[in-house]
Amino acid sequence: MKWLTAIACVLAANVCWAQADGAFRPASTNVWDAQYPRIDDAGRVQVRVKAPDATKVKLNFWNGPKVDMQKQADGFWSVITEPLVPGFHYYTVVIDGAEVSDPGSQAFFGGSRYASAVEIPEPGATYYSIQDVPHGQVREVWYHSKVTGTWRHALVYLPPGYDTQAKARYPVLYLQHGGGEDETGWIRQGRANFILDNLIAAREAEPMIVVMAYGYARRAGEAPPDMSSVAFGSPAMLKGMLDMAATFEDDVTQALIPFIDKTFKTLTDRDNRAMAGLSMGGMQTFHVTLNHLDLFSHIGGFSGAAGLLSADAGKFDPKTAYNGVFADAAAFGKRVHVLWLGVGSAEGERFLSGIRGFHEGLNAAGIKHVYVESPGTDHEWQTWRRALQDFAPRLFKHRKART
Amino acid sequence: MKWLTAIACVLAANVCWAQADGAFRPASTNVWDAQYPRIDDAGRVQVRVKAPDATKVKLNFWNGPKVDMQKQADGFWSVITEPLVPGFHYYTVVIDGAEVSDPGSQAFFGGSRYASAVEIPEPGATYYSIQDVPHGQVREVWYHSKVTGTWRHALVYLPPGYDTQAKARYPVLYLQHGGGEDETGWIRQGRANFILDNLIAAREAEPMIVVMAYGYARRAGEAPPDMSSVAFGSPAMLKGMLDMAATFEDDVTQALIPFIDKTFKTLTDRDNRAMAGLSMGGMQTFHVTLNHLDLFSHIGGFSGAAGLLSADAGKFDPKTAYNGVFADAAAFGKRVHVLWLGVGSAEGERFLSGIRGFHEGLNAAGIKHVYVESPGTDHEWQTWRRALQDFAPRLFKHRKART
Repeated sequence: MKWLTAIACVLAANVCWAQADGAFRPASTNVWDAQYPRIDDAGRVQVRVKAPDATKVKLNFWNGPKVDMQKQADGFWSVITEPLVPGFHYYTVVIDGAEVSDPGSQAFFGGSRYASAVEIPEPGATYYSIQDVPHGQVREVWYHSKVTGTWRHALVYLPPGYDTQAKARYPVLYLQHGGGEDETGWIRQGRANFILDNLIAAREAEPMIVVMAYGYARRAGEAPPDMSSVAFGSPAMLKGMLDMAATFEDDVTQALIPFIDKTFKTLTDRDNRAMAGLSMGGMQTFHVTLNHLDLFSHIGGFSGAAGLLSADAGKFDPKTAYNGVFADAAAFGKRVHVLWLGVGSAEGERFLSGIRGFHEGLNAAGIKHVYVESPGTDHEWQTWRRALQDFAPRLFKHRKART
Repeated sequence: MKWLTAIACVLAANVCWAQADGAFRPASTNVWDAQYPRIDDAGRVQVRVKAPDATKVKLNFWNGPKVDMQKQADGFWSVITEPLVPGFHYYTVVIDGAEVSDPGSQAFFGGSRYASAVEIPEPGATYYSIQDVPHGQVREVWYHSKVTGTWRHALVYLPPGYDTQAKARYPVLYLQHGGGEDETGWIRQGRANFILDNLIAAREAEPMIVVMAYGYARRAGEAPPDMSSVAFGSPAMLKGMLDMAATFEDDVTQALIPFIDKTFKTLTDRDNRAMAGLSMGGMQTFHVTLNHLDLFSHIGGFSGAAGLLSADAGKFDPKTAYNGVFADAAAFGKRVHVLWLGVGSAEGERFLSGIRGFHEGLNAAGIKHVYVESPGTDHEWQTWRRALQDFAPRLFKHRKART
C-alpha cells in the first residue's frame, strides 16, 4: 500500500513534514509538497532529515558549507546554513559515514550519482525561469552508434514554431554537460530550454536547435581500462581521459551529427553548427571542434578545462596547441565566427588560472575571442546559465550579416 | 574538483567499486559503471553501500525482501536477497533509521521520493526493450493551466514518422502514473515508448500519440488541506482524494486536452481518444472518462482502484456507480469501444478483491469488457507493462473496421 501512504503524505503534508514557519519557505527544487529543505531571502538553507538512530549527521554542500546537523527530539536532524550565493547548489547528507541524498529534494544527476540540490533565486533574474512566452519542446531521442556499439540517449531542444513552420530549417548548437553529470543536466539543472525560450521571444537569439548528448563513451567491445594502479592526475589517467574524449569525438562526428541532420530540419553547413560545453564538456568541445573546423564555426568553453588535454596543461602555445590550429590567427578568425571562454570568479585556482591563461595566450596570439567572468559564482550552474545567456545571442549572426 | 573525482571513478571503476565476480552482474538500472547493485540469473540481488560508522543497515524492497545487511571490514554493508520475480523493483536502504536511496542506482520517482530500483530481466521478453525498429520520440511540454494556476509539465510520445508524414493525424492515449509517482514513470520505469515502438513496428498497434501528465493538482489559490487529524482511510481522507481527482479532471478536460489538440496533429473526436492509468491513475481514469464519455471512448484501469471513489468501496452497483453510466449496458457498449481491467495475481488482497469485484459486477451487469490477470506479479511495473502491451493493440481498431 505504498501508493496509499504516498497519497496520504501528499494530502496530509503536515503529518509527514513539519509546518513551514516564518521567513523560510520550501525550495523550488523540492519534491511535491516536501516542506524541507527550506530557504529564506538571505539565501540560508535549512535542511531536515529523519535519522532516528544515527550518531552523526553532516550536511555537505559540494561548493559550500559542510556542517554538522543537530539531532532533535523527534528523530530528525536539522541545521541552518550561512547564506549561499544565488543559483543551483548540489548537496548530500552524510549519515554515520554514508553519503546519501535528501528524500525531500528532487534528484539531479551530478557527481556520478543522483544528488540533492537547492535552488536559491537570484533577485530580478527571470532569464532562466519559465515565462509566458512561446515555449520550445525538449525531445528525447535514441540513436545507435557504431562507435560505441550501443543505443545512446540525447535530449534535443526545438525552438517555438518548429512544428508549424514546415519549411524553416534551423542552425544547431551541440551543448555538453560536465563530468559526473549527464545529458539531462542542461535542462533540469541549467534550464537551457527556458533560457532559449526567453532569448528567442525577446529576439535576442536566433531560433536554434540545441542537442544535449551523453558525454561518456567507450569503444564497441572495449572493456573499462584497468586503472587500479593509476594515480590521480597521472599521465595514465590523462591517457584514459584522452581515450574517452577521442571516442566521444568519433561518436559526435560519425553517429550523432548524421542522426540529428537526418532526423530534424537542420541547416547542415559548418556556418550553422556550434558546440559548447561546461567543465569536462568544455574540454570535449575544444577537442571536437578544433579537430573538426570543417564541421563547426562557433565554439564555447564554459569553465572549460581546455588545458587538460595538452601535456603541458596551462601553458598555451598557439604554434602547437590543437595541432597548430591557432598558428595563423587571421585564418582562424575567418573560419571561427565565435570563440567564447568564461569562468566564475569564485571558482578554484586551477580553473581560474587555466582558463585565464588560455585567454591571455589567445590574446597574445591575436586570436579574436570573447572572455567573460561571472562575478561571485563558483564551478556551478549559475556560472553556466550566465554563460549560455551571453553565448547564445552571439550565435549564427553571420546569417543576418550576409542577407 | 568533484568533476575530476567523478571522471576518475568512471575511468578507474575498480578503484571506486569492487570488481564484479562470478554469476553476478551490474543491474541495467545502475548509474554509469556502478558495479552494485548486482543481479544473477536467478533474480537474486546483491546490494552494497558504504556506511562505515553505521550500526544497523537494512535493505528494503517495497514489494519484496526486507533484510538486514552485513558490515564488511572495508566499511561497506552488503547482502544478497532471495530471487525476485522479473520486473522493476523499487527499494531503499535504511541506515540507522534513515530511509535513503542507494547511490549506485539510478533514481526513479516513486513513493513521493526519488527511490532506487533494480531491473530483473524477464527471460525472452523483448517487448519493453529498445529494438532496432523505428523509434518514436518523447517530448517534454509545458502548459499553463487555469485550473491550477500553474505551469504543468507533461511528456508526450509521438510515433515513428510523426515528423515526416505531414498530413497524418493520430489518435491519443492519455496514460497516467500511480500515486507517489509522476509523469516520468511510464517512460523511465514503464518503458512505454519502447512498448509502443515495438507494437507499432509489428503492426500490432495503431500509430498513436501517448500523453503522460502530472497527476497531482490543487486548485488555483487553494492551500493544502489541513489533514493533521485525519485518519488513514477515513471519510475525510477519501474526501481529500476526491477533491484532488476532481481538480485533476478539470485540468485534463479544460487545460490539457485543448493544449494537446492545439499543439499536436491529433484526431480530436471521442472515437480517437483513450485514457488509461495505473493504480491511482486507474482511479483517475475511471473518474475522468466515465464523467466525460463525450470525450473518451476507450478506458483502461491497470491495477486501478475503481472502488476507492465510491463511498461503498468494492461494492459495485451498476445502477448507481459513476452516476449510473453502467445502468444501460447496451448503450454503454455502443459508446465505449474498449473497457479494460487488469491486476497482478500477486497483488495484495485489497487490490485483488476490489478489481475482481468490479470485474464480476460488470459481468453481472452485462457490460462488455476485457479482464486480464498478470501471473505472478505484484503491484509493480511488470504488471503495468504487460497491461499496456495487452491494452494498446486493442485501441482505435474501430477506425479500420469502418473503412
